[in-house]
Amino acid sequence: MTITLYELRGADDRRFSPYCWRTRMALAHKGLDAVYEPCSFGEKGKFAFSGHDRMPVLTDGAKTIPESWDIACYLDDAYPDRPSLFGGPIGRAEARFFNEWIPALQGPILRMVVKDIHDHIEPADRSYFRQSREQRLGKTLEAMHEARESNRPAFEAACAPLRAVLATQPFFCGDRPAYADYIVFGGFQFARSISPLRLLEPGDALYGWRSRMLDLHGGLGRSVTAYPE
Amino acid sequence: MTITLYELRGADDRRFSPYCWRTRMALAHKGLDAVYEPCSFGEKGKFAFSGHDRMPVLTDGAKTIPESWDIACYLDDAYPDRPSLFGGPIGRAEARFFNEWIPALQGPILRMVVKDIHDHIEPADRSYFRQSREQRLGKTLEAMHEARESNRPAFEAACAPLRAVLATQPFFCGDRPAYADYIVFGGFQFARSISPLRLLEPGDALYGWRSRMLDLHGGLGRSVTAYPE
Repeated sequence: MTITLYELRGADDRRFSPYCWRTRMALAHKGLDAVYEPCSFGEKGKFAFSGHDRMPVLTDGAKTIPESWDIACYLDDAYPDRPSLFGGPIGRAEARFFNEWIPALQGPILRMVVKDIHDHIEPADRSYFRQSREQRLGKTLEAMHEARESNRPAFEAACAPLRAVLATQPFFCGDRPAYADYIVFGGFQFARSISPLRLLEPGDALYGWRSRMLDLHGGLGRSVTAYPE
Repeated sequence: MTITLYELRGADDRRFSPYCWRTRMALAHKGLDAVYEPCSFGEKGKFAFSGHDRMPVLTDGAKTIPESWDIACYLDDAYPDRPSLFGGPIGRAEARFFNEWIPALQGPILRMVVKDIHDHIEPADRSYFRQSREQRLGKTLEAMHEARESNRPAFEAACAPLRAVLATQPFFCGDRPAYADYIVFGGFQFARSISPLRLLEPGDALYGWRSRMLDLHGGLGRSVTAYPE
């Protein structure tokens, strides 16, 4: 059966959705080949059959699964003989907390790079993007860009518990990465895909962890258009 | 072999340490009997042999283990045939994130109830407690009490991802509680043990979860001196 991933793309084929990165990494973790169907905001019609208007959407043969969390659970259940994303029911339940906590990290990142997203998507999508994001975030893209360093304290506050964990173990899932790592990775890879803003510096435990994540699965995270690590 | 838990106590035998609650619940989860050695701040000499000056300290026969996290790992490793606290290596690694994130919840709670702690510990310990906490928190206990509602937004922000998880599953570890639940429970039980301040109201998913936690292990959490749920 063919697995297809409908995945958000920007201009220059940039893959910047943190949620799609979770699924990309999850598929690689399970050792599953997939056909990638990159879709710009204007190409959502490609997966209209799913009844869902956000990516990722995954199809596996006749099955259609939207939502990154549901896709991860589906893959772990449908392919139990392959490396687990969760390591059992407790691991899955605890990963859900990462899934719900991650806005504390991704929210400040989004505010810092939202103007860069605008500048790296297809010109035809920019008017829709500007209008929807300015309405959601309550400021112009330019005002958010101007004030972006004001989000640094919230970003650093979210990094603190992550760094504390990495002081005791190399990955959030222990000696080896699993789905909770992919959830956190999505946020950083999102930024790196569309913004020159440096979020992490060498010497930081999170920088080292991100490097290890970028090395995974044949360097999947480095295989796309992005700004330097 | 006898397991002994050296556990912080206040006046009226109140057991208010969030860290000791984690261990209490972990012991009950493993079905292990323990001798409780309640110690006020002034009675730390009881476990001076451990070389550690904070509770919990656990002894199991000739072994001495300080620190709640290390105790949980010890119990799961030493008693593998009993119900697991982590459900495997990924579950243990992910629980570590709860352990490092929990100051986001416990910090605001501490600031809200610190004056109540003072009022519920042995009179002989109050001067030490006042001095050390006022130095650490940078304000008098009375000033913190006066301004306690100013901590409510930070408390609510920490509750948000917890509530989001509970919208999808009854416990943080899934269908049944395990160590990550005990980590979170410690913060709420800490407050309930020494403060009349209501943190949660009926109808809140966290209130329902805390009630289920209080029911566990023969109502262990209800078996102590505390303010109403």
